[in-house]
Amino acid sequence: MATAEEVKEQINAQTAAIAALKKANAPKDQIQAEVKKLLDLKAQYKTFASNNGNNQKAATGSKKNFTLKTPKGTKDYNDKEMAVREKIFTTIKTIFKRHGAVTIDTPVFELKEILMGKYGEDSKLIYDLQDQGGELCSLRYDLTVPFARFVAMNGSKYQNIKRYNIAKVYRRDQPSVARGRMREFVQCDFDIAGVYEPMVPDAEIVRIMKETLTALEIGDFTIKINHRKILDGMFEFCGVPKDKFRTISSAVDKLDKAPWEEVRKEMIELKGLPAEVADKIGTFVVCKGGREMCDFLEEKLGSNATAMEGINDMKLLMTYLEAFDVLDKISFDLSLARGLDYYTGVIYEAVANVPPESGKKKKSEDEGNVGSVSGGGRYDNLVGMFSGSRTVPCVGFSIGVERIFSILLRKMKLEEVKSNEVQVYVCSVGKGLLTEKMKICKELWDNEIKAEFMYKADPKLDKQFQVCEREKIPYAIIIGNEEIEKQVVKIKDQTNKESGNGEVVPRSEYIQYIKNLLNQN
Amino acid sequence: MATAEEVKEQINAQTAAIAALKKANAPKDQIQAEVKKLLDLKAQYKTFASNNGNNQKAATGSKKNFTLKTPKGTKDYNDKEMAVREKIFTTIKTIFKRHGAVTIDTPVFELKEILMGKYGEDSKLIYDLQDQGGELCSLRYDLTVPFARFVAMNGSKYQNIKRYNIAKVYRRDQPSVARGRMREFVQCDFDIAGVYEPMVPDAEIVRIMKETLTALEIGDFTIKINHRKILDGMFEFCGVPKDKFRTISSAVDKLDKAPWEEVRKEMIELKGLPAEVADKIGTFVVCKGGREMCDFLEEKLGSNATAMEGINDMKLLMTYLEAFDVLDKISFDLSLARGLDYYTGVIYEAVANVPPESGKKKKSEDEGNVGSVSGGGRYDNLVGMFSGSRTVPCVGFSIGVERIFSILLRKMKLEEVKSNEVQVYVCSVGKGLLTEKMKICKELWDNEIKAEFMYKADPKLDKQFQVCEREKIPYAIIIGNEEIEKQVVKIKDQTNKESGNGEVVPRSEYIQYIKNLLNQN
Repeated sequence: MATAEEVKEQINAQTAAIAALKKANAPKDQIQAEVKKLLDLKAQYKTFASNNGNNQKAATGSKKNFTLKTPKGTKDYNDKEMAVREKIFTTIKTIFKRHGAVTIDTPVFELKEILMGKYGEDSKLIYDLQDQGGELCSLRYDLTVPFARFVAMNGSKYQNIKRYNIAKVYRRDQPSVARGRMREFVQCDFDIAGVYEPMVPDAEIVRIMKETLTALEIGDFTIKINHRKILDGMFEFCGVPKDKFRTISSAVDKLDKAPWEEVRKEMIELKGLPAEVADKIGTFVVCKGGREMCDFLEEKLGSNATAMEGINDMKLLMTYLEAFDVLDKISFDLSLARGLDYYTGVIYEAVANVPPESGKKKKSEDEGNVGSVSGGGRYDNLVGMFSGSRTVPCVGFSIGVERIFSILLRKMKLEEVKSNEVQVYVCSVGKGLLTEKMKICKELWDNEIKAEFMYKADPKLDKQFQVCEREKIPYAIIIGNEEIEKQVVKIKDQTNKESGNGEVVPRSEYIQYIKNLLNQN
Repeated sequence: MATAEEVKEQINAQTAAIAALKKANAPKDQIQAEVKKLLDLKAQYKTFASNNGNNQKAATGSKKNFTLKTPKGTKDYNDKEMAVREKIFTTIKTIFKRHGAVTIDTPVFELKEILMGKYGEDSKLIYDLQDQGGELCSLRYDLTVPFARFVAMNGSKYQNIKRYNIAKVYRRDQPSVARGRMREFVQCDFDIAGVYEPMVPDAEIVRIMKETLTALEIGDFTIKINHRKILDGMFEFCGVPKDKFRTISSAVDKLDKAPWEEVRKEMIELKGLPAEVADKIGTFVVCKGGREMCDFLEEKLGSNATAMEGINDMKLLMTYLEAFDVLDKISFDLSLARGLDYYTGVIYEAVANVPPESGKKKKSEDEGNVGSVSGGGRYDNLVGMFSGSRTVPCVGFSIGVERIFSILLRKMKLEEVKSNEVQVYVCSVGKGLLTEKMKICKELWDNEIKAEFMYKADPKLDKQFQVCEREKIPYAIIIGNEEIEKQVVKIKDQTNKESGNGEVVPRSEYIQYIKNLLNQN
C-alpha cells in the first residue's frame, strides 16, 4: 500500500505530466483521462489526511495507529534474505583476508566538515543529523572518506595498511529496488594505503576484484580499466580547456547509460565545448580492448606528456595483471571515467553481464541492467586533504552488495534457503517429558551441538517431525517413557525416508554417536 | 589535545566550581588559584576561536584545517581492537546459532514515531535525523523496538521467531570510556517471539546468557533475576499507590549504584512515599538468594494475587533452570527492577564480578565497576503497541559488547594481538624477481592459501623476514635465480628459529607441501 508521502509524490508527477501533455497539444481525451487519475490521487491523499487527523485524536486518547513501515529507501532483511547476504559477506571477507587485509571500524556518522567538499554535486545526497546541541554530524556517504580520515588521524602508524570494511553507507538518492539502489546499503571496501612500487598494489586490486566476483558466482563479468592521466592527456590533445577536464569527464562517465549523441550534445550545448573538440573526443571514447590498447594509444597520444605517464603505468599494470592471471577479464576502456573527483590514477569498474530475465521484455533501462557491481581507483591526494602536508597514496575498490544480492536472488528460490543451522531436534512421545528433553538439549549444547526442542509440554510426534521437515533439521532424538527407563534414546535420520524408527543408542553413548553422524556430513 | 568544545565544557565546570567555593566561603588563596585556571582556559578557548576564523579564511583560499576527530562518544577501532571484537562477535553468534536463532536486519534509522513513547525519560537521548524533506527519522536506540516493529509488520509469518541481531545503536548519553559507555555502541540481542509453554523460552534465555558469558571468558559473573509481577505485588503489599509503581520501581533500580538510604530518601522526598511504606519496601529489597526465595516470598506475599502469579512463574522457571544446569549462576534478587517500561514478566541482568585493577586504588565509582554486561526480560505488550489488536509475547536479552570488550582488554596485551591471517610470505633473493613472486602468490591464492609479498622491486631478504616476524606470518617461500632455474622453491618455518635455510621443494609439489604444513597446525 502506498504511503501518504508516496501519493503526494505521485500527485506532483501527475500534475507535471498533465502540464507537459497540454504544452504538447495532446488530444483532449488523453488529457482528460490523465486529469481523472490526478483527481483520484487527490482523493486518496485526502483520506490519508483525515486518517491522520483521527490518529492524532486517538493518540491523545490511549492508542496510536502507526505507519508500520521502514523509512523510504530502506528495508528489513528477513532470515532467508540474511542467510543469502551473510554468505555474500563471508565469501568476500574470506578473499579479502586471503590477501592479508585487516579490518577497522569507523562510526556511522562523521563530523559534517569531514564529508564536505569530497563528493562534488552529490554532496546534496548526504544525510545530516539534527543539530541537538554539540557537533554537527552527517551519516557517512561511503567508506573511503572515513578510511582516509582514519589514516590521516593515526599518523605514522597506519601509513601502510591493507584494510577491508563491510558496512552500511547512506545516500538520499531516488531509490530503485529493481536496480538494487537503496538509501541505506552495504559496501564492501578493500583499500591499500602506502608508498609502494608503482602499479603493484593497483594490480592486486584487480586480481581481488576478479577473485571475489568469481567466488560470488554472479555469472560473467568484465572489469573495465582506464587511467585518469590518459583521460586528461586525451582531453588536452583534443583541445579541451584545462578547467573543463572534470566536467567533460563527468559527461564521458555517462556513456554506459546514454548514447554518444546525447553525451556529445551535453558537451557542446551544456558545457560549451566546440563541436570539433567533442567529435575528436568521440573518436577516442569508442576505443576499448586489451593490452594492445597501450601501443595504440602511444601512437595516437605519444606526444602528450600526461597521457604518456598514464600509458606507461598501464603497460606496467598489464605485465602484472598477466602474472596475476586476470587479463581475461579486462577491458581497457577509454569511455570509463568514474564520477568521483578524488581519483588520480588507474580507475576500475566491474560490470555484470546479466542476461534479461527469460520470458520478460525489457520494459525500461532499469530492467536487467544491474550495471556496475564494483568500482574503484587510485586516490593519492585524499589523505592529504585531511592531514595537510603529509600525503599517503591509496588505491582501492568497493563491491556493492545490494546489486550482487539482487543478481543472486534472480538465480535462486528464496523460500528454499535454510536460515537456521539446527542439527538435532529433541522430540518426545508421551506426557510429562519436558524437563527430560531440556536435559538432553543441555547435554547437546554442552557439546557444541546445535539443538532445539518444541516449547510445548506434550506435543504430538508428527507435529515435531513436521518442524524437522520444515526447518530441514537433519537428525531427531526421540525419547518416551520406555527409553528413559532403559537409559537409551532413539536417533533418527530425518533426511532419509527409509531410516525407519531410528537407532536405539545408550544414553551414555548418544553424544558421541551424534558427533560421528555430524562429522560424516 | 582537547577540542574547542571540550575546553568550553571545562570553562563551564570551572565557573561552577568557583561559584561553589565562594558560596562555601573558601579561603581567598584557593579561589584565586581556581580563577587563574579559569582565565587560562578562556585564553585557550580564544585561540580556538581565532584559529577557527583563520580556517574560515583559509577555506575560501585553497586548504582547510580539519578537526581530525570522530564525533563525541564515538571512536574508531583499529585492526587489533577489531580482531578482539570480531572474536567476541563470532563467539556470541556461534552460541546464538546453537540455540536455533536466525538473524534479521533492520535499518539504522526508523520513522521517528516508531521510537516515540517507548523509552520513557530516556527518549531525550534519541538522535534525530535532520528534516531534509520527506519523513522524520531517528537513529535506533536499541534493537528491541525495531524487532517488535518487524514482528508486527510481518503478520502471521513471524509470530514465532528466534532471532539474533548484532548491530550498532545510538544514545546521546554522557560518554564514559572507562565504563565502556559510548554514544555509538554494539548490542547483541537474542529474542524469542511467540505463544509457548509458560517459562520455557524464559529459561532458555538464562541458559544462553550463561553459555555466552562463560564462552567469552570475562571471569566470574552473576545473573540476577526477578519478576515484574512480584515487584508490583510487593509494592501493593507495602502500600504503594498503583500510579506510583513505575516511578518507585525506577528508584529501586538504582540500588546497584546507590545505598538504600539514598534510594529511601528519593522515594520519600522526591516521590512522596510515606516513610513507613518506604521502610517496608526496604525490608524486601535486601532479600536475595536461590530457589528457596520462592518459598520465602510465598510466605510473605502469599496473600497478594499479583505477587503469587510471579512467584508461581519463578517456581516453574527454577525447575527448568535446574534442567538447563544454570542454578549455580543465579541470584533471585528483589532489588533488580530494570529501567525500561515495557517489561511485563521475568527480568534479567548479568553482572561481571571484576576485581579492581591490581596496584590501583579505586578512585571513583567508575573504576572497576563495569556493571551490567547483559540484561533483558519478558515484554508481552510491545508488539501490540505497533500492531494494535494482535499481540505477540516476547522474551529476550542483550549483551553489551563495549563492556565485554573493556573487560577483555584489561586481561590482554593489545599489541600482541595478531590482526592479519597471512599464512605464507613470498620472498626473493636477488633482483628482477617481482613478477615471479606474483606468479607464486597467484598459485597460492588459487589454492585458497592466504599469502602476501613485499610491494617492492628488489627487497633485501632480512627486510622480508622482519615482516614475517612483525606480522607473525608462519611460513616463508623463498626464491632466487637458482631456485627458478632448478624449478624449486625454499620453504621456511618462520616460527622455528632452528629451521635453518628452509626445505627445498620442487615447484610442482610446493602447493601440496604448504597445504600439509598448514593442516598440521
